[in-house]
Amino acid sequence: MATGRIGLWLIGAKGGVATTVMTGLAAMNRGLVEPIGLITETSAFHPLNLALCRDIVIGGHDIRDESLLDEARRMWTVSRAISPDILEAVTPDLQDIETRIRPGTVLAAGRSIQAIASSPESKKVTTPRSIIDRIRKDIVDFSDTNDIDRVIVVNLASTEPPWSLPIPNEFEEISPLLEQTTDSSPLPTSSLYAIAAFEADAAYINFTPSTGATPPVLNKLAQDRGIPHAGCDGKTGETLLKSVLAPMFRDRHLTVKSWVGHNIFGNLDGKILDDPLNKAAKVRSKDHLLASLLPSTPQTLVSIEFIESLGDWKTAWDHIHFQGFLGTPMTMQFTWQGCDSILAAPLVIDLVRLVDRARLAGEAGSLPWLASFFKSPLGCTEQGFAAQMNMLHDWVKKSSTQP
Amino acid sequence: MATGRIGLWLIGAKGGVATTVMTGLAAMNRGLVEPIGLITETSAFHPLNLALCRDIVIGGHDIRDESLLDEARRMWTVSRAISPDILEAVTPDLQDIETRIRPGTVLAAGRSIQAIASSPESKKVTTPRSIIDRIRKDIVDFSDTNDIDRVIVVNLASTEPPWSLPIPNEFEEISPLLEQTTDSSPLPTSSLYAIAAFEADAAYINFTPSTGATPPVLNKLAQDRGIPHAGCDGKTGETLLKSVLAPMFRDRHLTVKSWVGHNIFGNLDGKILDDPLNKAAKVRSKDHLLASLLPSTPQTLVSIEFIESLGDWKTAWDHIHFQGFLGTPMTMQFTWQGCDSILAAPLVIDLVRLVDRARLAGEAGSLPWLASFFKSPLGCTEQGFAAQMNMLHDWVKKSSTQP
Amino acid sequence: MATGRIGLWLIGAKGGVATTVMTGLAAMNRGLVEPIGLITETSAFHPLNLALCRDIVIGGHDIRDESLLDEARRMWTVSRAISPDILEAVTPDLQDIETRIRPGTVLAAGRSIQAIASSPESKKVTTPRSIIDRIRKDIVDFSDTNDIDRVIVVNLASTEPPWSLPIPNEFEEISPLLEQTTDSSPLPTSSLYAIAAFEADAAYINFTPSTGATPPVLNKLAQDRGIPHAGCDGKTGETLLKSVLAPMFRDRHLTVKSWVGHNIFGNLDGKILDDPLNKAAKVRSKDHLLASLLPSTPQTLVSIEFIESLGDWKTAWDHIHFQGFLGTPMTMQFTWQGCDSILAAPLVIDLVRLVDRARLAGEAGSLPWLASFFKSPLGCTEQGFAAQMNMLHDWVKKSSTQP
Amino acid sequence: MATGRIGLWLIGAKGGVATTVMTGLAAMNRGLVEPIGLITETSAFHPLNLALCRDIVIGGHDIRDESLLDEARRMWTVSRAISPDILEAVTPDLQDIETRIRPGTVLAAGRSIQAIASSPESKKVTTPRSIIDRIRKDIVDFSDTNDIDRVIVVNLASTEPPWSLPIPNEFEEISPLLEQTTDSSPLPTSSLYAIAAFEADAAYINFTPSTGATPPVLNKLAQDRGIPHAGCDGKTGETLLKSVLAPMFRDRHLTVKSWVGHNIFGNLDGKILDDPLNKAAKVRSKDHLLASLLPSTPQTLVSIEFIESLGDWKTAWDHIHFQGFLGTPMTMQFTWQGCDSILAAPLVIDLVRLVDRARLAGEAGSLPWLASFFKSPLGCTEQGFAAQMNMLHDWVKKSSTQP
Repeated sequence: MATGRIGLWLIGAKGGVATTVMTGLAAMNRGLVEPIGLITETSAFHPLNLALCRDIVIGGHDIRDESLLDEARRMWTVSRAISPDILEAVTPDLQDIETRIRPGTVLAAGRSIQAIASSPESKKVTTPRSIIDRIRKDIVDFSDTNDIDRVIVVNLASTEPPWSLPIPNEFEEISPLLEQTTDSSPLPTSSLYAIAAFEADAAYINFTPSTGATPPVLNKLAQDRGIPHAGCDGKTGETLLKSVLAPMFRDRHLTVKSWVGHNIFGNLDGKILDDPLNKAAKVRSKDHLLASLLPSTPQTLVSIEFIESLGDWKTAWDHIHFQGFLGTPMTMQFTWQGCDSILAAPLVIDLVRLVDRARLAGEAGSLPWLASFFKSPLGCTEQGFAAQMNMLHDWVKKSSTQP
Repeated sequence: MATGRIGLWLIGAKGGVATTVMTGLAAMNRGLVEPIGLITETSAFHPLNLALCRDIVIGGHDIRDESLLDEARRMWTVSRAISPDILEAVTPDLQDIETRIRPGTVLAAGRSIQAIASSPESKKVTTPRSIIDRIRKDIVDFSDTNDIDRVIVVNLASTEPPWSLPIPNEFEEISPLLEQTTDSSPLPTSSLYAIAAFEADAAYINFTPSTGATPPVLNKLAQDRGIPHAGCDGKTGETLLKSVLAPMFRDRHLTVKSWVGHNIFGNLDGKILDDPLNKAAKVRSKDHLLASLLPSTPQTLVSIEFIESLGDWKTAWDHIHFQGFLGTPMTMQFTWQGCDSILAAPLVIDLVRLVDRARLAGEAGSLPWLASFFKSPLGCTEQGFAAQMNMLHDWVKKSSTQP
Repeated sequence: MATGRIGLWLIGAKGGVATTVMTGLAAMNRGLVEPIGLITETSAFHPLNLALCRDIVIGGHDIRDESLLDEARRMWTVSRAISPDILEAVTPDLQDIETRIRPGTVLAAGRSIQAIASSPESKKVTTPRSIIDRIRKDIVDFSDTNDIDRVIVVNLASTEPPWSLPIPNEFEEISPLLEQTTDSSPLPTSSLYAIAAFEADAAYINFTPSTGATPPVLNKLAQDRGIPHAGCDGKTGETLLKSVLAPMFRDRHLTVKSWVGHNIFGNLDGKILDDPLNKAAKVRSKDHLLASLLPSTPQTLVSIEFIESLGDWKTAWDHIHFQGFLGTPMTMQFTWQGCDSILAAPLVIDLVRLVDRARLAGEAGSLPWLASFFKSPLGCTEQGFAAQMNMLHDWVKKSSTQP
Repeated sequence: MATGRIGLWLIGAKGGVATTVMTGLAAMNRGLVEPIGLITETSAFHPLNLALCRDIVIGGHDIRDESLLDEARRMWTVSRAISPDILEAVTPDLQDIETRIRPGTVLAAGRSIQAIASSPESKKVTTPRSIIDRIRKDIVDFSDTNDIDRVIVVNLASTEPPWSLPIPNEFEEISPLLEQTTDSSPLPTSSLYAIAAFEADAAYINFTPSTGATPPVLNKLAQDRGIPHAGCDGKTGETLLKSVLAPMFRDRHLTVKSWVGHNIFGNLDGKILDDPLNKAAKVRSKDHLLASLLPSTPQTLVSIEFIESLGDWKTAWDHIHFQGFLGTPMTMQFTWQGCDSILAAPLVIDLVRLVDRARLAGEAGSLPWLASFFKSPLGCTEQGFAAQMNMLHDWVKKSSTQP
């Protein structure tokens, strides 16, 4: 059964995760690599008749003028993470995608993201509404030009600073504010993209800790339009391990006294996180789950530091200090040496296929059964990875029996 | 509701786990410590009306003549694991227990265990049946003398070498062989104890990788007598982490290429495991779960080495080499610095209370819902910790609604 | 040969390092422990005829009113680092020392140190000169009352914020400023103590990164009075390892690209370092040596975080990313789990004996041959540990042949 | 000043270290890479006028028929250690070298090395003397054909089992035994190569723990012929760190109680070391230095395990348990993730240039000042790395002033 052509529209299309998504899909379609890391390619998901990888057409926005090919190749030249022969083989695919990349926007994105923007168009200051309209038009044009059945927009842009202004709960209150100048934008950039997606009839996935469609008013907008969305902040490495290990300490009634996590990496996202404002949003997303997973809240600490030589290799060291029987203190440490984009890209593809499948099944608004993919899952308080996987498999079973 | 007096009979009563069980129960009963590590003290288990900790009377067998008090104090003097003021406070309790310790047996226990036996009685060579009878009588006397309602025997003795002879499936075939001399014992020592337990109408828990009640013929014996048993090999540290982490690699469809685990520790169990024969049994128990948890069987390696200076502190380093999207190799390492006896003792107490509760509910034979406690659970193929915890909680829920 | 009675005057006398020095000396004098960690007790130092440990009399200043005994016992109750039986055995010695502890001062010590001061006397605001005079008098009284031949003052107080005001190079310029009120103190607290020490004819050791006797004007003061001093910032753990490992990378011509060091600990010093001002001074001292040891300056990062549950156990994780032949990137990581006060205390005792010996030999001003003891050695640019040890042994050899 | 053309004859010419030496020299000569890891390219060595890298001509022996190019490329395809563009660029150089590779011998090399031999010539059974003569002739032909001034033979073959037979101290006693059949070879394979080297007037370097020129009788043979040699067992990773860290524990008078080192890797050398016989030789070489560096001999353990997925990446985890002041136990752990051949190759090139320089200066027999390069240095008991580096630099200084 064919499910039609899927448009995958990436915000931050020249970043590491995005180029890895592109390289990976192209390499799989060319038969060069196995679908390692893609859970939607395992047998449990076969009954769902998900969109085929070869039916995914990619386009997107970016704020930088750099060549997509050069950016993709950094995964070899800087990070030694993707084999150069694979990058060579998919060059035509990347060149093709590059024709479908449009300038993004840094309106309300904060000083650090604005500092790396090189596309003049992306830096144009105008009203939020004009920005939304331009973005929506890009998405609609992409869909029309490429004979696409359904579009999914995925936010892969660098982390914004936390948004401190109150966000109204009714879209009617926001609308007039969007017509004003940027000096008083009522929403951060990521939320403008989310609105544009919904207005372009596209599903939306927020793979970052930025605000995106998290505010209730935007969830309501999605529900009103019958569009599903998911988020936020992909759970790829250190936080994934927290959500796997913390339930063990809880289930064994061991008292965690402190949990320290130090993360170092050197890609562009890391550079943006070097700004304390942007870092604050990320750290909150990486840290908060421990309090919900452990009965006695331990002292926690998360650091993320930009170490340029590491490139895309995110190395995390976690130190867990816990008390056992008779009060005896013990420790566990782990070191995770993962390649950030390599871990994230298959999750993005899995999410695209699952959100698209949910849309076909008529689901709208946030999708709590996708919690296992996110550090800060929308509409779901469960933070334990195994319990989240059970939620996902329950949905798969339920959906597999549907026509 | 009182559930009566429970007799806890420990085989290997002077070892680190046993003395920690004694110290811990006594310290809790005296109000000196919180029940950290005891899951049966968490709220989910309250509806079960489990036996009270203060109603547990302890006795046991050991093959060594050393003073129980001295052995218990090694947890401070050698290992710095239990605070000396606690050990001081429970001295009268330990002295009381010492009056209820009887000589064990090393018949068919292998050269390394035989080498550490210091009790002359334990080394007496006679028929297996005579040994069983003597052990059974010790247990029955213990029960009678101390006004005990139900006895649970727990095997905490050092690991035997793997048993290589075939074990008949009918007890009728084994019985005559038990009358012969030790030169042809049809069963290893741990199984002789298990038979004695069942014949003394006691439930049985095998906290070690030794044979115990694992052979089908002994499970049948337990069922025939209406007695539950559980095992085998308590899951306390490195293997616990394997059963927590391996499902994550599976659920994320990451290909584990190799999983290496090196364990070092310096207590008496470690000394026994320094014998390659005994070590073989332990390594098998620590290693086999990965094959069942991971779709593509990785190369695995487990080592356990006796490093005297570490005492009871079992330090494990695991190195996991896995492949992600696009074939990119990555690694995870962890170091676990846990105190073996401190981790094991609360599991023993939890198991005693749960097995006793199952008996009251009429369960007999092996108890698969206790899988989360064991490296090699009897009657259960599930090796993932989260799934095993679900089995336990399902049983708790079911049992809580029973009268 | 007797060398006389030595007075050891500790600033921060109730802190972890100070109480460990007291406990250690008392325990050695009582024959309870071996002199592990004391290099002056190894055979190479025997020809120097150093002051005997049993001839050291201790007194000091502190800004807190807490009981010395209680503070000393925290090394067991909070940190499980010193065995409680040792602490029990030396109780009379600590009670004796407590009679010789006088209130310190927090004048010009910064907000965080001022916040923990509980002694009213220590918080009295007066002129720096009055403070110096009071401190000097305390030291002189200590010396007179206890029949002491030579006094050594050691700064073990928590780290001050870096001093940002220029410090004149002539004591004549400073003197009048000392007469003014605290609002314009020309020197930080640690330097006031150093002046008091020199004016009391005492040698001085700065075991912290605080300013102390580092300014040239104070070194000159010491030289003028014929008094030796040493500093600064004891090299006990992570930085020691840097000074051991960095020369290896240099000697093998491997290019270190980045060196990240994360330190976590929970003692009072850690609490003070939680203040960014105070932390800045510490981080600088821990970080700067890599630039001097490695030919191509790598990106470096040092963090120190207060994790209360760890107590005195300072755990450091270092991640070293380096390039080898053909540009291949490789990594080394280490985890150091050391007890801060336990590592520091024997260095303090060694320094006291060596500085005293230098004084007997007529040395004055800073002592560069003590570089191996310090993160920021005075009068010495060599940062490699092995080379620093050669400097020390050369001095020992030279001094051993002197009458 | 030209020093002439150097012939570098590699035993085990198709192994990882050998192909990395070839690739590295070719890449440097083509200006593709910097000489990272080569200490002879640092300024301290410039006054020595060492042989130029571009004047080194390579040939060698191997027991396998596999293509040199394929073997060299495994450093990318299996290990991701050398960039494929570098391997591509040096293809002509490797093809040229392949014409100078001759069949080796497995006579007396032990079962595991014999099992991997694929060259029929290498497996021919004849007398040791015939083997020596064939090898010597290969070396002499190489020298003559390529217009070479001086040849250095380097043993890079996989580790032999330890040699258990006594080796006579006079070559006159050995000579007749060499004429006999292989069933009674008086020396292991590596020593036959060493004899052939000396008889071909070539210097010799033993980069492995095999016997080579270690027996006094062969050192004497070298001295008699005026030829220098060096060895044995290149110090590249974990053992290098031991020789750097152990002196620190000694110099701080900290008592090391146990030192455990676990090594895992997956190259051909690792496969050979999987044989307990061969492993025994390696472990001894990696372990013995601690006893000589530490005053109180700790319990030590070294394991080396073949984990195929790691390829050339040798990962070592060391756990050091030590006691500090007041008997407090502490730990240090490190993880070393190094690429074995990448670390070894520059040492081989450095050694070739230094041994050649020593020969020009008239040195003969073993060269103790090269101790820093070896796990088991010949003619030198010093095992501390810093002290060994001082020996090397003293020699450099002395030699730099010579004409």
